[in-house]
Amino acid sequence: MQPISNSFKRLYLAALVLCIAAPGFNALASDEASYPPNVILIIGDGMDDVQISIARNYLVGANGRLILDSLPVRSTAQVLTVDEENPDLPVYVADSANSATSISTGIVTSRGRIGTRAGSDEDVVTILEQAQQKGLKTGLVATSSVTDATPASFAAHVKLRMCADPANMIDITYMGVALGSCPDDLIANGGPGSISEQLANSGVDVILGGGSKHFETPTEAGGESVSDLARRNGFEVVTTGDELASLPAGKRVLGLFGESTLPVRTRGEDGRGAEKADPSLLNSVHWYLGSVELPEPMKCEANPDYGNTPSLKAMTDAALLQLGHENKNGFFLMIESASIDKQAHARNACGSIGELEQLNEALESALAFAEKNPNTLILVTADHGHAAQIIPYESLFGQFGAPVYSLGQIVRLMTPEGAGLAVNYATNDFMMEEHTGAQVPLMANEVGRGLVPGMVTQPEIYGLMFEHLGLGTEK
Amino acid sequence: MQPISNSFKRLYLAALVLCIAAPGFNALASDEASYPPNVILIIGDGMDDVQISIARNYLVGANGRLILDSLPVRSTAQVLTVDEENPDLPVYVADSANSATSISTGIVTSRGRIGTRAGSDEDVVTILEQAQQKGLKTGLVATSSVTDATPASFAAHVKLRMCADPANMIDITYMGVALGSCPDDLIANGGPGSISEQLANSGVDVILGGGSKHFETPTEAGGESVSDLARRNGFEVVTTGDELASLPAGKRVLGLFGESTLPVRTRGEDGRGAEKADPSLLNSVHWYLGSVELPEPMKCEANPDYGNTPSLKAMTDAALLQLGHENKNGFFLMIESASIDKQAHARNACGSIGELEQLNEALESALAFAEKNPNTLILVTADHGHAAQIIPYESLFGQFGAPVYSLGQIVRLMTPEGAGLAVNYATNDFMMEEHTGAQVPLMANEVGRGLVPGMVTQPEIYGLMFEHLGLGTEK
Repeated sequence: MQPISNSFKRLYLAALVLCIAAPGFNALASDEASYPPNVILIIGDGMDDVQISIARNYLVGANGRLILDSLPVRSTAQVLTVDEENPDLPVYVADSANSATSISTGIVTSRGRIGTRAGSDEDVVTILEQAQQKGLKTGLVATSSVTDATPASFAAHVKLRMCADPANMIDITYMGVALGSCPDDLIANGGPGSISEQLANSGVDVILGGGSKHFETPTEAGGESVSDLARRNGFEVVTTGDELASLPAGKRVLGLFGESTLPVRTRGEDGRGAEKADPSLLNSVHWYLGSVELPEPMKCEANPDYGNTPSLKAMTDAALLQLGHENKNGFFLMIESASIDKQAHARNACGSIGELEQLNEALESALAFAEKNPNTLILVTADHGHAAQIIPYESLFGQFGAPVYSLGQIVRLMTPEGAGLAVNYATNDFMMEEHTGAQVPLMANEVGRGLVPGMVTQPEIYGLMFEHLGLGTEK
Repeated sequence: MQPISNSFKRLYLAALVLCIAAPGFNALASDEASYPPNVILIIGDGMDDVQISIARNYLVGANGRLILDSLPVRSTAQVLTVDEENPDLPVYVADSANSATSISTGIVTSRGRIGTRAGSDEDVVTILEQAQQKGLKTGLVATSSVTDATPASFAAHVKLRMCADPANMIDITYMGVALGSCPDDLIANGGPGSISEQLANSGVDVILGGGSKHFETPTEAGGESVSDLARRNGFEVVTTGDELASLPAGKRVLGLFGESTLPVRTRGEDGRGAEKADPSLLNSVHWYLGSVELPEPMKCEANPDYGNTPSLKAMTDAALLQLGHENKNGFFLMIESASIDKQAHARNACGSIGELEQLNEALESALAFAEKNPNTLILVTADHGHAAQIIPYESLFGQFGAPVYSLGQIVRLMTPEGAGLAVNYATNDFMMEEHTGAQVPLMANEVGRGLVPGMVTQPEIYGLMFEHLGLGTEK
């Protein structure tokens, strides 16, 4: 019996080791380790808890579940920003440039900056660049221009987010307003050039989104366009969804499917956005008097300008096909639904809802990929909070008899479940709403369990991705 | 060698069983099972992600951590409400009555209802009552009147939250406005009576908070006051923090430390709250012209009215002392920081900050208790979203040169870390702000791991507590 006794001793010890070393996930963990590590980072621009709640109510009903609601690991991310003049001083509301830079580099910087430090303007290496250096593939997918703040922050380094192409580096103006210059970033001055030129010179494998106008301008050196430069650097340049879908696997690709931001999928009825309540003359005299006409309730409808624009899901599928192809080293992919934010700035609740739906569908593709590639960490987060609020369709104070209403602009939606959903935009009275400063959701698939704590700061998201991709270890 | 071989076989099998049955938490789980199950449910009224972010920024700095940030398990809770007339129809913004009823009973009801169904008015048994029936101890702690919507929803059943005492059951008015009646809840009509009378007749072991005025009125039958009724039913009635602190363990106690809502701990400088921006005449003509004077920045200060009010932490400590004393069956305790909400309604950012700090301190006591009593599930959540937003202290559109500002009411705080924090209240122009409809945070201590999924609806929180307390199993 001696041999059996010894083999039982060994089995017992092995069982104990398993118990201690990898509690709960023994089988899974050993499975995962045999696959290359991938990170799919999905950013909903401005997708705070309010935006998710609005979209859930409209798309699947108050009692329904979005795909992102099914993610098993949840955390919250504190957004950090600092002052440009005094980088020790916090600023409590971010923009997409500084918050994406937090996520891509692990540092905290000032509003408007892309992959650079506040004050010193020092370039900071990004998770995408570090992944590249380790031989991993990389990709950027966005519904904005690919030069926009969020994608740019993963593969470019520039003082100001507006320095999007060689023609927009010095004395940039928008609607007659001077927005600044990026002289130190000019190639002529030893810098890396504008954002589009940096992308064209980058080693990124897949870049998909809008922004063709930023690639049609001549390079800083002149002679060829930025997109010709990209071609010369090995990118296939495609401009339609069909071209993208028919691209064989294993290509480096720059897909530009619109001039600037891609058209959004949905809009308010007849193109209506938020509108102001209209108080009667008597109500203008005293809040307790008269009456108030609220905006007509409406539904969301398809945006006729959307046309054949490839969906975020279609771009995600194409990116995963290219990045997953014969890839033994893994990849880093950032996917952004950009116009949740842009439509909230413009007070179009239906626009934001449709773009959150796009994110939700892209997540479905990511989850299907992770199902077959078990070492794939999926993170879903937002870069900052936004203006929209769900306010009562009928005021909590209706019994007081007086008309109680918001001074902001309101969208009153009739949802598919037949109930009234009132969305309030009231951070300012300007042509665009402000961002807001709340902590934002962070969610992960099962691979994130044990890796993602209950709360992080935004720069710590960089650390989670760095760790999962094993970028700190020798290969 | 045979005996050794057999014992190793047994050890191996035991190790395997442990591995399979309780992966990861073998030691802990078996430890926990030897302690009685407790639930400490901590509700921040209106404590959405915005309120937490405001308080974090002010109390510990943008880069700091509140105690609640350290909770290892995070989820989000979708708030559900239905229409009173048509209970199949969702309503997207809750009040504290219907949302606390969701948590306490697992059903979805209409605004204003306490432990009763929309439409039918049927009483629904609460988690507290079920815990009592199983021989567990129970407690309610709040900084509001103990008859207020949140605590009431755990131990009372009434059509309208305003039916707080025997003198407020029929034709209730507030500021001259008729708010309704609860005729069917009158004891004379076979009902359970007003909220205070239901509490006095309840089997709850510990009830601590404000609201003495609701216990000083005669009972519905007349003759004695509601607090005399409570005494007759075995409650020690105390009215000061000293009395509470000197109470020996093992008592049933009704502590009423103020007439109505307890005074809050902090307020704005010199009692200031939110104020409107003051545009120049020229700016009133066109947004691009003139200038705007924003409210003076300020700090928070101690509220002189707070006096000797027992803190939420002191009440929590007292409740845990009573409930934990020689308790072999476990307990259910609900702790509410009520005035995060009330101060947000009143647009007092400093008030909400101080009351969130109170919640944070009460959580510290709960965590210390759980450290010694390992089968204690701590849940921290909010009942609904609220009006406050963090807007940029300097507008994102400052470069446009025009004054960009909110039409709502603004608190501009100078935080201890020396930065400007702007809080916007703009859901209406009435004397009180509205609630909002975002999903709310749900956090748990380590005991919640594996029990609390990444997302729940508010009624599902009831299910989690029911499960942890083992209320579905025979004793």
